[in-house]
Amino acid sequence: MQLSEEQRLDWLRLIRSDNVGPRTFRELVNYYGGARAALAALPGLARRGGASGPARICSQEAAAAELKTARGRGIKFVALGEPDYPPRLQMIDDPPPLIAVRGQHAILTRPLVAIVGSRNASAAGVKFAERLARELGEAGFGIVSGLARGIDAAAHRASLTSGTIAVLAGGHDRIYPAEHAHLLETILAHGAAVSEMPLTWEPRARDFPRRNRLISGLSLGVVIVEAARRSGSLITARLAGEQGREVFAVPGSPLDPRAEGTNGLLKQGATLVTEAADVIAVLEPILGRGLDLPAQEPAQETPGPLETEPGEDERSRIIALMGPTPAAIDDLVRLSQSSPAIVRTVLLELEIAGRLERHGGGLISLL
Amino acid sequence: MQLSEEQRLDWLRLIRSDNVGPRTFRELVNYYGGARAALAALPGLARRGGASGPARICSQEAAAAELKTARGRGIKFVALGEPDYPPRLQMIDDPPPLIAVRGQHAILTRPLVAIVGSRNASAAGVKFAERLARELGEAGFGIVSGLARGIDAAAHRASLTSGTIAVLAGGHDRIYPAEHAHLLETILAHGAAVSEMPLTWEPRARDFPRRNRLISGLSLGVVIVEAARRSGSLITARLAGEQGREVFAVPGSPLDPRAEGTNGLLKQGATLVTEAADVIAVLEPILGRGLDLPAQEPAQETPGPLETEPGEDERSRIIALMGPTPAAIDDLVRLSQSSPAIVRTVLLELEIAGRLERHGGGLISLL
Repeated sequence: MQLSEEQRLDWLRLIRSDNVGPRTFRELVNYYGGARAALAALPGLARRGGASGPARICSQEAAAAELKTARGRGIKFVALGEPDYPPRLQMIDDPPPLIAVRGQHAILTRPLVAIVGSRNASAAGVKFAERLARELGEAGFGIVSGLARGIDAAAHRASLTSGTIAVLAGGHDRIYPAEHAHLLETILAHGAAVSEMPLTWEPRARDFPRRNRLISGLSLGVVIVEAARRSGSLITARLAGEQGREVFAVPGSPLDPRAEGTNGLLKQGATLVTEAADVIAVLEPILGRGLDLPAQEPAQETPGPLETEPGEDERSRIIALMGPTPAAIDDLVRLSQSSPAIVRTVLLELEIAGRLERHGGGLISLL
Repeated sequence: MQLSEEQRLDWLRLIRSDNVGPRTFRELVNYYGGARAALAALPGLARRGGASGPARICSQEAAAAELKTARGRGIKFVALGEPDYPPRLQMIDDPPPLIAVRGQHAILTRPLVAIVGSRNASAAGVKFAERLARELGEAGFGIVSGLARGIDAAAHRASLTSGTIAVLAGGHDRIYPAEHAHLLETILAHGAAVSEMPLTWEPRARDFPRRNRLISGLSLGVVIVEAARRSGSLITARLAGEQGREVFAVPGSPLDPRAEGTNGLLKQGATLVTEAADVIAVLEPILGRGLDLPAQEPAQETPGPLETEPGEDERSRIIALMGPTPAAIDDLVRLSQSSPAIVRTVLLELEIAGRLERHGGGLISLL
């Protein structure tokens, strides 16, 4: 599959519009049969969902400008389903419909391992991350990390020649932390930088967990080198587990707070790593197996929008069943006695209106 | 079961005689129906086994003197099967028939956990061992260790009040290392010292692994705090595994050589410990279950010695099948086409003659 330039523009407009995240993007495109039709449907969905104002839809001009600027800077937008799209990222629950890639695209389709850890790393942690990244690089793996201070930077630096990928929480024009702008340029010679955000997007706190799902999603496995309790690296480990990726952790002294997180992961069943061979032993058999792409969902009998348009009563009844506590969509269908298609439509409307939050695992709540 | 003083003397003579270890002791007593009859049989066994000289049998006077000296120093000999004998130690393959106990006997029948590790411990390792010993002591466990420098001493010191057991590789009159003689005296106030060796036995290198089986054998589980590769603590861990005891290991940095052994144990499936609760969570359910004593072997039809006396030809045929490479007794029976009783008799003869080595797991070799 390869998008036409016109389709790529529509895709970019849709994902850049308010209240459209990767999951909603997929819902909308499946439902309306394409991004263009989905864009046309947004105002109606927002109105019926009870939006406080008109839906902010990304204009054709804004999207075209982003594409043009990107092209000028050597950044390429790769769409979900295109041959250059990283194969394993395609398998996650909420793959970004478009990723903006700078550098060597070829690395995205190589076998990848993530190495992440504390910003506030110990000298030993940094040294170990370097050794591991170098040895895994020599073994043929591309090294994925988050360009942060500490462990991330050490992992990138030790794999500059073998190839490394920096996944950004902001846009390509807002490198964080700024002091790593030069490191990033060095990465691009044999590696790449990846972002799903607009070029000038300033990363906010909540963009980091969102980015972390890409770090694990790109990779066969994630190695956590040092991590305090409740640190971002543990979020990456959790996401990796949810995505079915291998989770590796490096042990440390129980008296070292920087090992609390990794020791905790080991107690939960992560694979203990003291050398590259521990990682390779687990990942090599997976590589051999090739990609375990999920079975295609049976072609849905996508009902025309009109047929699944809920009446006012039905819509109110469904909304009345929801609240701020996350509830299962399945339960909503059962309790409302509406058809799954109707419930999905109401949820889409609420989402586009900015009134719905999706929590993953089929859970939703009202905002 | 409680031995008479006369029986205790016979037991001590038998176990103190040349070429009689804990396994042979049990064979002999089962075979001849008691220690006294076994003592009487030793010279004949040694002769038929091809001993180079007469068997050195511990004299009545020597054994009586050892018992008397021990009594004078407050050391009590407890025999396998007596109520004071540590219940779990009874379950191992090769329990000592007699243990010499100094201090508070009551601690031997409490739930026990071993804490062991490097002599050359790090400050962090010592601190962690202390914390763990203190917390497990507070939770009601007696702490077993080997009185060595480093981790062992730290574990003892932190559990002086709650109760701790030092298991000696030598006799009670040859405390090793000598600098811990005072520590040992302090231990005795609420704890005990245990040895299976003669009072004045100077520990040799090979006595330490032998002693280590008692450390694990007394305990529900063994915690290894720090251990280099190929260290004595790893022997204790292996013995603990073979004895069906829980093996716990404390993680450490892959760059710390003192953590190589413990990280290796964790890779092999040991339970990761960063706090006392990790140990308690595993051991508490075992405690609840009470002792899982092995089923009694069916009463053997002990054949009279005469009936199982092999002829010269048969003896030579069996010995010809053996060599310096460990072989299974079962195979010996099969290949020789002799009865198991005859093969056992020949093995006993060879053993008493000092020509046989038993390797555990039913393996034997000629010396």
